[in-house]
Amino acid sequence: MKIVVDCLGGDNSPEANVEGAILTLRKHEDLKLILVGDETSIREVLEKRNVTSKRIEVVHAPDVVTGNDKPIDAIRLKKDSSMIRSIRMLREMEDVDALVSTGATGPLVAAATLRIGRIEGVRRPAFCPILPTMAGGVVGICDSGANVDVSAEMLQQFAIMGSRYLEGAYRVKNPRVGLLNIGKEDEKGDDLRREAYQLLSGTKSINFAGNMEAREFLSGDYDLVVCDGFSGNVLCKAVEGTALELLKKIKTDIYSKKKYKFGALFMKKMFMEEKEFMNYQNYGGSVLLGTEKVIVKGHGSSDRAAVRVCVDQAYRMVKSKMNENIRKSIMEDAAFREE
Amino acid sequence: MKIVVDCLGGDNSPEANVEGAILTLRKHEDLKLILVGDETSIREVLEKRNVTSKRIEVVHAPDVVTGNDKPIDAIRLKKDSSMIRSIRMLREMEDVDALVSTGATGPLVAAATLRIGRIEGVRRPAFCPILPTMAGGVVGICDSGANVDVSAEMLQQFAIMGSRYLEGAYRVKNPRVGLLNIGKEDEKGDDLRREAYQLLSGTKSINFAGNMEAREFLSGDYDLVVCDGFSGNVLCKAVEGTALELLKKIKTDIYSKKKYKFGALFMKKMFMEEKEFMNYQNYGGSVLLGTEKVIVKGHGSSDRAAVRVCVDQAYRMVKSKMNENIRKSIMEDAAFREE
Repeated sequence: MKIVVDCLGGDNSPEANVEGAILTLRKHEDLKLILVGDETSIREVLEKRNVTSKRIEVVHAPDVVTGNDKPIDAIRLKKDSSMIRSIRMLREMEDVDALVSTGATGPLVAAATLRIGRIEGVRRPAFCPILPTMAGGVVGICDSGANVDVSAEMLQQFAIMGSRYLEGAYRVKNPRVGLLNIGKEDEKGDDLRREAYQLLSGTKSINFAGNMEAREFLSGDYDLVVCDGFSGNVLCKAVEGTALELLKKIKTDIYSKKKYKFGALFMKKMFMEEKEFMNYQNYGGSVLLGTEKVIVKGHGSSDRAAVRVCVDQAYRMVKSKMNENIRKSIMEDAAFREE
Repeated sequence: MKIVVDCLGGDNSPEANVEGAILTLRKHEDLKLILVGDETSIREVLEKRNVTSKRIEVVHAPDVVTGNDKPIDAIRLKKDSSMIRSIRMLREMEDVDALVSTGATGPLVAAATLRIGRIEGVRRPAFCPILPTMAGGVVGICDSGANVDVSAEMLQQFAIMGSRYLEGAYRVKNPRVGLLNIGKEDEKGDDLRREAYQLLSGTKSINFAGNMEAREFLSGDYDLVVCDGFSGNVLCKAVEGTALELLKKIKTDIYSKKKYKFGALFMKKMFMEEKEFMNYQNYGGSVLLGTEKVIVKGHGSSDRAAVRVCVDQAYRMVKSKMNENIRKSIMEDAAFREE
């Protein structure tokens, strides 16, 4: 297995990307890495960490794609950037299976959509980030921002792709799929939601659990939430934002009184665990589902640990033959509808 | 001022509704109440609390509209229900200024839309719940579920109505309005959001602060968030759900170890305050903006304190001449566009 790691474009690049990537080598003996970015700085990090391995290749592409680059400009004008170069390798080299990047989302999605083919039958690739649930498991959101306008059929494909992803990369058996809606009852929501409800109910390759309200998202009653990219983006950011703000408030409140500060001394470990629990970087990047090769988009602020999780995630997606499983499910579903 | 209180349909009705309502009488000397529901049980609560006041009127309407009633059926078949009767009084009695209900949302919105006129120029009434921010203030969401499909012009009206509401009922000066979107940049989102961005930028009667991501919702940087009812519903429920689930998790974790339990003894008050802070019922009901008379929808699980806040909220909305201010702003804006 060969994974390309784009080592530029993140807040902590290239150190975090290089260090995170090499941490995965020990765990997976069949894994080879191609580190793309400024060769000198990548080699410096490798030297500092005393890493020499035949399983690491370094490719020099020193330009950086930033959030200020218009996606189309990045693709046309920044051919020597680590991101566009990585995409080209993913496209052209048959033995390269996956790409991990912490660079700008817009250019990455555009380049992936234009340069990397879609899995047979897939209408549009979609983002699927993973968050922790209060029941100790994880829950995915598909789509979380790649497609603002969607059709019922696209929502159905998001359900199929997300289900194969959770089975393959997280070993969730028979993932329970909820349709994000403004109420639980069957007939809730707009025409799109009602049509999607019918379609999802008749989709054999998923385990549809009905409408889900945003309030239940962290409950652990669902493994995957299916939604348009706009409301999925709102859901994801609202949950992350609320958790972070609330923990910040608790911290401020603790420091406001000596008594609280004293009590908190006994609970340090608990609060640390709470913070780690809600740190979404621990659960991996937001994967792009539906492209012919695996693409994982890590958060821009990813540290070494976060990049490690992303590479590991990509490994599991490839290893579980996720894309082949997505293709089969989508074909089966199309055949079923034609019958 | 006269406010009708629908005393049936909530989880704690009629006690909570009657007790919450009478608590507001002392605060506002010019307030009169009409309590609608089963007369015997309402009078029982009044007697138990030793309340006799010339400012209280009781109207017998013993039927209950529930969440299982289809809105249209409730209106046609449950004419003797407290909700439909309350709506009729709001419509027919000129001296009645507002209605507070903790009953089923669907039937209430339908009855209000069909039976109570809209403020001149208003296209559609919209819900605007209020939540606390981490900066110690409040933030409104308009719309949070009454309109799943919206136009840019409707979003503009939500911004105007919400602004007049926050000024009148919460004394927020020059409320900062954010457009809920998937990114901060001007051109983010779908056609609707881009068109709304332009419209909001040119609206004189509001203080438009640009696009807002769901992550920033609790930051205190915005006083009002404008959105379609679908994503507004997702935002509102995601924030409430995450806060509740996280506080629940912290509680469970505290009880998991003796050391934590000991530490928490010193922080009891803080955790209680944290819980009260995130209890959205403390901030009032979800008001319906745009109808000719003021309507406040309290949460179904409202207790006495929550009902009290709702009646108080209705009082402040009427007192501040909110509806007249909404009408003026919308007229001014229409005139401005015609020039």
